[in-house]
Amino acid sequence: AKTFKIAVLPGDGIGPEVMAEATRVLDVIGQKYNVTFEGTFANVGGAGIDNEGKALPQTTIDICKDSDAILFGSVGGPKWESLPPDEQPERGALLPLRKIFGLYANLRPAIIFPSLTGASSLKEEVIGGGFNVLVIRELTGGIYFSQPKGIEGEGRNRIGIDTMKYSVPEIERITHVAFQAARKRGKKVCSIDKANVLSSSVLWREVVIDIAKQYPDVELSHMYVDNAAMQLVKWPKQFDVILCENMFGDILSDEAAMLTGSLGMLPSASLAEGSFGMYEPSGGSAPDIAGQGIANPIAQILSAAMMLKFSCGMVEAADAIDTAVETVLDQGYRTRDIFQNKSGEKLVNTKEMGDAIIAAL
Amino acid sequence: AKTFKIAVLPGDGIGPEVMAEATRVLDVIGQKYNVTFEGTFANVGGAGIDNEGKALPQTTIDICKDSDAILFGSVGGPKWESLPPDEQPERGALLPLRKIFGLYANLRPAIIFPSLTGASSLKEEVIGGGFNVLVIRELTGGIYFSQPKGIEGEGRNRIGIDTMKYSVPEIERITHVAFQAARKRGKKVCSIDKANVLSSSVLWREVVIDIAKQYPDVELSHMYVDNAAMQLVKWPKQFDVILCENMFGDILSDEAAMLTGSLGMLPSASLAEGSFGMYEPSGGSAPDIAGQGIANPIAQILSAAMMLKFSCGMVEAADAIDTAVETVLDQGYRTRDIFQNKSGEKLVNTKEMGDAIIAAL
Ligand SMILES: CC(C)[C@H](C(=O)O)[C@@H](O)C(=O)O
Ligand SMILES: CC(C)[C@H](C(=O)O)[C@@H](O)C(=O)O
Repeated sequence: AKTFKIAVLPGDGIGPEVMAEATRVLDVIGQKYNVTFEGTFANVGGAGIDNEGKALPQTTIDICKDSDAILFGSVGGPKWESLPPDEQPERGALLPLRKIFGLYANLRPAIIFPSLTGASSLKEEVIGGGFNVLVIRELTGGIYFSQPKGIEGEGRNRIGIDTMKYSVPEIERITHVAFQAARKRGKKVCSIDKANVLSSSVLWREVVIDIAKQYPDVELSHMYVDNAAMQLVKWPKQFDVILCENMFGDILSDEAAMLTGSLGMLPSASLAEGSFGMYEPSGGSAPDIAGQGIANPIAQILSAAMMLKFSCGMVEAADAIDTAVETVLDQGYRTRDIFQNKSGEKLVNTKEMGDAIIAAL
Repeated sequence: AKTFKIAVLPGDGIGPEVMAEATRVLDVIGQKYNVTFEGTFANVGGAGIDNEGKALPQTTIDICKDSDAILFGSVGGPKWESLPPDEQPERGALLPLRKIFGLYANLRPAIIFPSLTGASSLKEEVIGGGFNVLVIRELTGGIYFSQPKGIEGEGRNRIGIDTMKYSVPEIERITHVAFQAARKRGKKVCSIDKANVLSSSVLWREVVIDIAKQYPDVELSHMYVDNAAMQLVKWPKQFDVILCENMFGDILSDEAAMLTGSLGMLPSASLAEGSFGMYEPSGGSAPDIAGQGIANPIAQILSAAMMLKFSCGMVEAADAIDTAVETVLDQGYRTRDIFQNKSGEKLVNTKEMGDAIIAAL
C-alpha cells in the first residue's frame, strides 16, 4: 500500500478540534482506498510561539520538508496580538511557509452550497441557486516579497516603502495554473489587474494574453481590480476562474469568500511546483468558540480533500469527500455557524459533523 | 454679489447631459443665495482627445488653474479603449489633474437612500434602513505615483516594477481630513492597512494612531484591507468613516459604492489644501445610454453640492440640494436606472429629474 507523509499543523483556536475530524476522515479514506497517511504533528502559530518560541519553529519546517503535503489548521488569537507583526502567528507562520516551500499558487474556491444560500448577505435574486468562483492568487511574489521594503529615515522624515515586482516567468506559471483549472470547469478566466496605473499590471496583462494563446478553448477577459470588487457584489455568477496577483488576490478572495456567507465551509490550497502543497481552511481560528467542540470542521475536511487531489493524485477519493459533505448538508446536518433554524435541520457539534461525513463516505 | 469661477468639464458619454442639469441647479442656487457662478467649459477625456488631441489639453489645465473649483462629468468610452493606457480618457485626465492640483483627499460617500434600499444586492436584513459610509482615500501618493515604476529588461527577462511609498506628512494630512469629517458625523474612523505585510502600512498605522490623539472625541479602529473587503459585505453599518491609502481606497470605495446599488446617485470630492477641489460622480460615462436624455443627473447634482460645501463655503446651499434630492426621491421621481416599478414611482428623464429637483429647491 502506498504511504503519504503528511505534516499536520493544527495551530490555534478551533484548529486542533477541526483537524481531529479531518484526520479521522483521512483514516477512513486510507482504509477505503488502501493507502496509508502517516501524519506527523507539529506546532505552528501561537502554539509554536508558546511551545517553541516561534510562530514557525525549525522542527516544524523540518517535518514539513520531510512530508508530501502540509495539512494546516488555523492560527492566531488575542493572546499574541500585541507581538510585532513579523512575529505574530499568522504573518510569522504563513509568509515563511509560502516562501520556503515555493507555494506560488493559491487556489481559493468561493462556493455557495445550494442548501446554504440563506447564509449569504446577497439577495436571492443575485445568487439564486448559488455560485462557484475559483480565485487563483499568485502567492510568492508582488508587494508581499519584493525589495526594497522597509521604513527609512527618522521621525517626521520617515518614509515607508514597499515594492511590487513581477517577472515574466512568475506571471507565466500562475497563468498556466489558472487556465488549466478553467479547462476543468467553466472554461473562463478573468484576469485582474490595474493596468491603467501599475507597470507590473501592464506586464501582467501582456503575459496573460500571451499564455492564453495556448488555451484556445478557454475564454479570457480582463478586469481592473476596483471594478472586480464591484462586479463580485453585483453579479458573482459572471465569474468562473479569477486570476490575481498576490495583493489583489488577498482582497478579492476574501470578498468572494464572504459573499458566500459560509466562510467556515471553504478550503484552500497553496501549491508548489510538483505535487507538494499546503491545505488550509479559508476562515480563521475563531478563538471565541475554541475549545467548545462546536466549530464547523467542513472547511478543514474539504482542505484534506484538496490535498488528496493535488498532492496525492487521489481525485476519486477527493470527490468522494466533496460528495459526502454535500450529502450531509442535504440531510440537514448543521453546526451552529450554519444553523438557520429551518425545518429539517439537525444542530450538531464538531464531532457529530465528522461522524456524519464519515458515515456518508 | 460674490462670484465663483467654475471650470466645467462635462467629458464623455452621459457627462454633458447630466452636467447640463447640475449647471441649471447652480443657476438657481446663485439666484437664491445671491452669488454668481461663472462657468467656463473645457474639454476633457475623449472630448479632449477628439477636439484637442489629448485627454487633458493644456487649455483645460489653464482654465482649471484660473478657477475656484472643477466640476467634472465623466470620461471614457469604447471609442478610446484601444489607446495606450497613459493616453486613455480616464487615466490620462484623472491622474494628471490630481497631481497638478494636489488633490490629495478623495471623499467618496457610499449612501443607501432609504427609498432605494431595493437597489442594493444586499439583503434587507443586512442593510435594513440603509447605511452611510464615507470613504476617505489618499489620492496623490502611494503606488499610483511613487518611483521607481516601469518595465525593465527585454523579452522573458522583463520585470514590471511599482513602488508604494508614504511619507509621514502625507499620512498626517489625510488622517486629519478623516478625523475632521468623522467629527461632523458618526465620530468613528476605521483606518485600513495591511500592516502585517507592508512597511508603508506599518508607518501608516503609527502615524494615524499619533494624529488620533488630537481627536479624543473620535473613536479609532484599524482593519486589514482583506478583512475590510469582507466586513463591508457582512455588515456595512459597522462603518462611519473609512480611511485608506490610494490603492486600497480605490478598491474599497468602489466596493462600498456598489453595495449601495445606486452608483448613479453617488458624488465625490477630491480636495487640495485650501478650498480648491474637483467634484465628480462616482459612476462612469455610461456610453450605452449616452445621448438619450435618460441618464440619472443626481450624482452630478450632488457633486455640485459638495463643491458648494467645500470650495464655496456654502454649506446651507449644499444642504438645500441634498434635501431637495431626498424630497424628489420621496415623491417617487425615478430615472430609469433607479426605477423599480413600484406604486408611487414616476419614471422621468434626465431633464425632468433636474426640473423636479429645482422645483423642490
Ligand atoms: C496573514 C496574512 C499575511 C495573509 C496574507 O495576507 O496573505 C492572510 O490574509 C491570507 O490571505 O492568507
Ligand atoms: C481611472 C483610474 C486611474 C482611477 C483610479 O484608479 O484612481 C479610477 O478608478 C478612480 O477611482 O477614480
